[in-house]
Amino acid sequence: MNISIINGPNLNLLGKREPDIYGNHSFESFFAELQGRYKKVTLSYLQSNSETAIIDRLQKDGYTADGILLNAAAYTHTSVAIRDAIAAIPTDVLEIHISNIFAREEFRHKTLIGPVCKGSISGLGFLGYQLGIEYFLNHVKKK
Amino acid sequence: MNISIINGPNLNLLGKREPDIYGNHSFESFFAELQGRYKKVTLSYLQSNSETAIIDRLQKDGYTADGILLNAAAYTHTSVAIRDAIAAIPTDVLEIHISNIFAREEFRHKTLIGPVCKGSISGLGFLGYQLGIEYFLNHVKKK
Amino acid sequence: MNISIINGPNLNLLGKREPDIYGNHSFESFFAELQGRYKKVTLSYLQSNSETAIIDRLQKDGYTADGILLNAAAYTHTSVAIRDAIAAIPTDVLEIHISNIFAREEFRHKTLIGPVCKGSISGLGFLGYQLGIEYFLNHVKKK
Amino acid sequence: MNISIINGPNLNLLGKREPDIYGNHSFESFFAELQGRYKKVTLSYLQSNSETAIIDRLQKDGYTADGILLNAAAYTHTSVAIRDAIAAIPTDVLEIHISNIFAREEFRHKTLIGPVCKGSISGLGFLGYQLGIEYFLNHVKKK
Amino acid sequence: MNISIINGPNLNLLGKREPDIYGNHSFESFFAELQGRYKKVTLSYLQSNSETAIIDRLQKDGYTADGILLNAAAYTHTSVAIRDAIAAIPTDVLEIHISNIFAREEFRHKTLIGPVCKGSISGLGFLGYQLGIEYFLNHVKKK
Amino acid sequence: MNISIINGPNLNLLGKREPDIYGNHSFESFFAELQGRYKKVTLSYLQSNSETAIIDRLQKDGYTADGILLNAAAYTHTSVAIRDAIAAIPTDVLEIHISNIFAREEFRHKTLIGPVCKGSISGLGFLGYQLGIEYFLNHVKKK
Amino acid sequence: MNISIINGPNLNLLGKREPDIYGNHSFESFFAELQGRYKKVTLSYLQSNSETAIIDRLQKDGYTADGILLNAAAYTHTSVAIRDAIAAIPTDVLEIHISNIFAREEFRHKTLIGPVCKGSISGLGFLGYQLGIEYFLNHVKKK
Amino acid sequence: MNISIINGPNLNLLGKREPDIYGNHSFESFFAELQGRYKKVTLSYLQSNSETAIIDRLQKDGYTADGILLNAAAYTHTSVAIRDAIAAIPTDVLEIHISNIFAREEFRHKTLIGPVCKGSISGLGFLGYQLGIEYFLNHVKKK
Amino acid sequence: MNISIINGPNLNLLGKREPDIYGNHSFESFFAELQGRYKKVTLSYLQSNSETAIIDRLQKDGYTADGILLNAAAYTHTSVAIRDAIAAIPTDVLEIHISNIFAREEFRHKTLIGPVCKGSISGLGFLGYQLGIEYFLNHVKKK
Amino acid sequence: MNISIINGPNLNLLGKREPDIYGNHSFESFFAELQGRYKKVTLSYLQSNSETAIIDRLQKDGYTADGILLNAAAYTHTSVAIRDAIAAIPTDVLEIHISNIFAREEFRHKTLIGPVCKGSISGLGFLGYQLGIEYFLNHVKKK
Amino acid sequence: MNISIINGPNLNLLGKREPDIYGNHSFESFFAELQGRYKKVTLSYLQSNSETAIIDRLQKDGYTADGILLNAAAYTHTSVAIRDAIAAIPTDVLEIHISNIFAREEFRHKTLIGPVCKGSISGLGFLGYQLGIEYFLNHVKKK
Amino acid sequence: MNISIINGPNLNLLGKREPDIYGNHSFESFFAELQGRYKKVTLSYLQSNSETAIIDRLQKDGYTADGILLNAAAYTHTSVAIRDAIAAIPTDVLEIHISNIFAREEFRHKTLIGPVCKGSISGLGFLGYQLGIEYFLNHVKKK
Repeated sequence: MNISIINGPNLNLLGKREPDIYGNHSFESFFAELQGRYKKVTLSYLQSNSETAIIDRLQKDGYTADGILLNAAAYTHTSVAIRDAIAAIPTDVLEIHISNIFAREEFRHKTLIGPVCKGSISGLGFLGYQLGIEYFLNHVKKK
Repeated sequence: MNISIINGPNLNLLGKREPDIYGNHSFESFFAELQGRYKKVTLSYLQSNSETAIIDRLQKDGYTADGILLNAAAYTHTSVAIRDAIAAIPTDVLEIHISNIFAREEFRHKTLIGPVCKGSISGLGFLGYQLGIEYFLNHVKKK
Repeated sequence: MNISIINGPNLNLLGKREPDIYGNHSFESFFAELQGRYKKVTLSYLQSNSETAIIDRLQKDGYTADGILLNAAAYTHTSVAIRDAIAAIPTDVLEIHISNIFAREEFRHKTLIGPVCKGSISGLGFLGYQLGIEYFLNHVKKK
Repeated sequence: MNISIINGPNLNLLGKREPDIYGNHSFESFFAELQGRYKKVTLSYLQSNSETAIIDRLQKDGYTADGILLNAAAYTHTSVAIRDAIAAIPTDVLEIHISNIFAREEFRHKTLIGPVCKGSISGLGFLGYQLGIEYFLNHVKKK
Repeated sequence: MNISIINGPNLNLLGKREPDIYGNHSFESFFAELQGRYKKVTLSYLQSNSETAIIDRLQKDGYTADGILLNAAAYTHTSVAIRDAIAAIPTDVLEIHISNIFAREEFRHKTLIGPVCKGSISGLGFLGYQLGIEYFLNHVKKK
Repeated sequence: MNISIINGPNLNLLGKREPDIYGNHSFESFFAELQGRYKKVTLSYLQSNSETAIIDRLQKDGYTADGILLNAAAYTHTSVAIRDAIAAIPTDVLEIHISNIFAREEFRHKTLIGPVCKGSISGLGFLGYQLGIEYFLNHVKKK
Repeated sequence: MNISIINGPNLNLLGKREPDIYGNHSFESFFAELQGRYKKVTLSYLQSNSETAIIDRLQKDGYTADGILLNAAAYTHTSVAIRDAIAAIPTDVLEIHISNIFAREEFRHKTLIGPVCKGSISGLGFLGYQLGIEYFLNHVKKK
Repeated sequence: MNISIINGPNLNLLGKREPDIYGNHSFESFFAELQGRYKKVTLSYLQSNSETAIIDRLQKDGYTADGILLNAAAYTHTSVAIRDAIAAIPTDVLEIHISNIFAREEFRHKTLIGPVCKGSISGLGFLGYQLGIEYFLNHVKKK
Repeated sequence: MNISIINGPNLNLLGKREPDIYGNHSFESFFAELQGRYKKVTLSYLQSNSETAIIDRLQKDGYTADGILLNAAAYTHTSVAIRDAIAAIPTDVLEIHISNIFAREEFRHKTLIGPVCKGSISGLGFLGYQLGIEYFLNHVKKK
Repeated sequence: MNISIINGPNLNLLGKREPDIYGNHSFESFFAELQGRYKKVTLSYLQSNSETAIIDRLQKDGYTADGILLNAAAYTHTSVAIRDAIAAIPTDVLEIHISNIFAREEFRHKTLIGPVCKGSISGLGFLGYQLGIEYFLNHVKKK
Repeated sequence: MNISIINGPNLNLLGKREPDIYGNHSFESFFAELQGRYKKVTLSYLQSNSETAIIDRLQKDGYTADGILLNAAAYTHTSVAIRDAIAAIPTDVLEIHISNIFAREEFRHKTLIGPVCKGSISGLGFLGYQLGIEYFLNHVKKK
Repeated sequence: MNISIINGPNLNLLGKREPDIYGNHSFESFFAELQGRYKKVTLSYLQSNSETAIIDRLQKDGYTADGILLNAAAYTHTSVAIRDAIAAIPTDVLEIHISNIFAREEFRHKTLIGPVCKGSISGLGFLGYQLGIEYFLNHVKKK
């Protein structure tokens, strides 16, 4: 089983950026932990500040992975292009947010990608990614 | 550890209501399964079509449970009173939706209770409740 | 043939509340008259100020009655929960309003339940209920 | 007793236009049936694609008929001129719609003529016209 | 002289809920004090989390009390049904808010019940209720 | 000097329509009076309920008359086509309204034709037409 | 007969301010001309950049003049206080604008004072004031 | 092959109306040229200032022509009735605009008929009609 | 103890302006009565039609008075400058309205100064000022 | 003659993405066909998921090509930067859409680049590109 | 060289008003410093809480100064009259704000005067005035 | 002292793009001049059409430079990602615009990055950058 994790802009700063919102661990160390926990799952990971790189990765993983966890960060609220990429690919995508986007600024309450994702997990910190993997494990088992 | 699950209006029809949106199992059978899976956690469950009953339960469980999973259904979009109850109690509340509310009618995209919940899980079917329990297990462990 | 009539909040005041808008007869005396006119139809009647009681009744009658006449009064404009109940049940529901809601305050022009009802009759006074029964008589005959 | 029925634009296509929304009978055959049913009522009928023709007819029938049933179709949502004509004449006008306008596109939820009509019947198919006649019969009797 | 005080949802938590907004005294002890101060006035008191219970009380007290002080709390912003109850009864209703609703979230700036109340007192803490009684004392004296 | 007066829909009912808004004289008798007062000016007059007839007249008079007084009535608020006709012709058009459109319903506050007219006179009754003629007399004199 | 003319902010610059919009004559010279033309009418004139001065004048002339011509300029779109002054006084007020406010920026299309004025004349240059006097002459004659 | 061209209000003024927007040739001479170029296609042409005439033509050609090119001009932005006619007929309709409607006033950016047309060509001058014919030639060939 | 009362534009007309809204007593006579009732409190009073005078007074009294009662009248809805003055001074300000602003025009429902006032009293007539003094008496006692 | 074709994000999936909206041919094979049809025109082609790459290409081709056909796909609705690039270059740009953007989701009805393009062709499938070339051939011939 | 500095309402409180937003120096001492730094420039200074005084000064300095630095404070967001004064005068005006208006309440993000000023400096504290002088020095030198 | 200057999309065309808005000098030559003027400051410069490149540079310079001058051009109005980058870094950012964005199209009046910048300078041409440097020089000196 292959699961792709894609993180959007500024998430490379996790651990140093606004720790009261995002916590003070880097995602890389969490990712290693996560791979350790799910040994039978092949996890891949991309962080990019580029809308284009995210679209390219969605187009590639969208035909090969069994599930995609996408934290599009700021692009959640502005990118119709990422939305279209999600709608175009056959693999299911889960929308993940570390912080609770509904408890922040008004413009973060609107998700452009939400309507084409399978579901979303928001506000549960890094744990959200792990729960997303659980979803795909469960979901695939049922198939 | 005590976790309270509260389901809002019309969720008593699960299994017979709009099965293409909500699936065809009743919540009761799922709840039994869930309690079986988490033997060390005391789960309580309320389904009610009454905004008042939900507020009353939140006020009660909000001082005794370790976590609350709330699927407020239609009241998600209309009840300031439930929002105020959540804000008033010390226990964390997770917002759960079986279907992906962002893929449905426009008026379901706005959550009045979201800003005062800890986080939300939407669109993952009954599994969302299980992942919510995982969150509280994890969250409490860290404390 | 069974037809259920459900009246929402403050309609128990009919006959004494704002008579220039709602007339000066009580609904109860009209209901007796109505049952007298349609002897072969079993009519049931609920008036309630409770959103929950209305949902509960819709869920019950929605599987047993041949038609439901719903005057949701103020809840017409605020209750997503009643809308969801109507959408969830198999029996057709007609929306009835005694006064013409389009000739009153702006916020009464928007009906949340309209999109999931079969149709609506507005502004024709108590007669609207009788015409609603005619519709169901006709509608069932055609089946 | 004289009752005038006025149908707006594209309703001449009834029976061939979008039968899943409007049914597959022409209005003319229904009108004959209706006149047969109400032998003591003089029914008149105009269908027109012209806003002007509708205004002219309203101005004429508005001083001679005992009631007017108006299905303004598309002009319901755009014509202030028809609204003004209705407001200007002494005869009561009922707004009739064959389909449930609240279950269709957003722009059909707003009725410009509703506030100056006596009431409205929507979504009950051709039967709506018959119920409208019943209203006027009843209404006149009471006078 | 009879004055009815009605408090809406979550006000039973006064004294423990968000003390920086609502203060740290329970309403019950304040009510006793109030009754002590106005010995010649019969005060009644209802707190309820139920929209229905509030409507029922308004309908009852609306024909017997000399004045009603209503702090509808969250229902202030969402309940057309309570608004309709106020409009339907002959007794004057004053809108009371402990906190200044205009200094809080945007959605609390809009009062649905304001237009049908006699007036409003907002942001003066428990004292608002006492001033409301003064109003009715004064108002009745003038009659 | 030629001045064209064009009146829009329902203004043929002047004198019998809503006399508290529009007065109780017919426009025809006023027009005769007006022609009597301005013997050296050739006045022409059209009243029509037809948007098309108004456009046709504007296109014709727009190349021959020295000034046009247009009371587009309801079309003021809905007709882009009349606006385009005014913009297309070389003759100046004055917008006339008998009643004060800003003191009526919200939707009458917006004039679609205002931006392409030379100016407007509103709320001065029939006198508005006479003042409009004065404007053209003055305006032409200055040329 | 007494007629008061009141001009709002920046109209003291007439003749030097934006001559393509407002022409290149000062209002003072026009006023002299106007007084010359209407020898039997006592005209008074105030230009002020002060909202307060305009209110004060309205309050004074509103009990003594037979008519008021008010060009509130920028305050037309922002001053509820001037609106309230107009509503409070018994004398009729006409709204005058030299330029066509509907052909300028969007925010100038909205007149706050329009709903409480008797009528308005817009876009006819200085002539608008003269026509306004004609209105009052006519209006008073009829009384 | 039959193709119908329908032009809406004020397009009879082409060649004399606002030449900087619409060019300085009449449509009639262009139409002759067009018929010359496509000898094997039977072209028909209607220009009308009447919404009704356009609806009537759409209803007629909608069952006989192989394609319809509709430049609804001002009615593009205001006519639900034309939209309904297009939706009701089986023949495909292309929306044509001589000028680029998106580069003009805000209210011209919204097309009411766009959603029910097959496609649109805007801003390419008279050539747009020719390209529309090419589309139908191509489209039919493929069938 | 010093309490400052500040009344905004047009309130000098109290007693003659719209008596059905504002009553028929002048504020001056009420003020004398008020001073008579609270002999130990030094009351000051300013009525002004000038936004500037109100700001100046707020800036002055805001450092010397123990409480300010401000009825900003029309400026309530338009003056950011008065809001800023209230926010800038240390003395608490109560917002007073004689009429119930929520029962009047839509634009009076929005208060710009509300968010920076301590609280508000609306719709209780002149009594509102007296209750405001009671508030300050009580409030200061507690300090 | 040089014509540049630029396709935006996700259009590389043409032929496999949502074939009911976009058809099942790849753009590359269509492009070859197109070059075959217009032997005397030098066609260039770029597809990119990158907003930046599209801007760069517009800046380059905007000084060398005779015409640009731009299908900006999702960026149509979100990119002010592409709009600015089009406005900055001398070469004319045509906006092309394969599907009819007005028949899709609301947010696709708004085109940010439309106001600075020469014109647009929407909903005609791949043929839209060919018609765009015809436009430039014609347009250049006229120069 | 003459430069006029105009400060709007409540800026006389600088140094004591909300020091976390505006700093704790008075503007007067800063002004003295500024005049010291630019010995060859004649600086004038007005602070006023009066919209009228600001307009009067703009009208005066607008014909004599070489540049105007205007911090309109609260009037920035409400005064069309100040906007019109700026548009009417030949001297360039720079908009200055001590705090960053975009980081404060929503209603401060909209500047009514911005569109008619030459440019703006916001959020740089008192230094903004000095930089504004630099702009005029530079700008005039270039002439 | 290190100051970073970052220019967004299409600013590489400065000197040839719309010279009436942006002037006719290239930024490169201005930059050289600027470095010449501030010999003790190390200036760095990036122009990019890429949102990603700008984010990357902000993340890099945001930990090393003493100040950042950012002219985000079109991204000012669309990029939440750049906003998040600014919020995430410790170095202060000034928003610079060559033209006055408030005097251009409506959509340019809204700045997404403004609320997280220290301040902004708009409409002062290239000089804005120089004044921005002055700010940082001053600002650092004070530390």
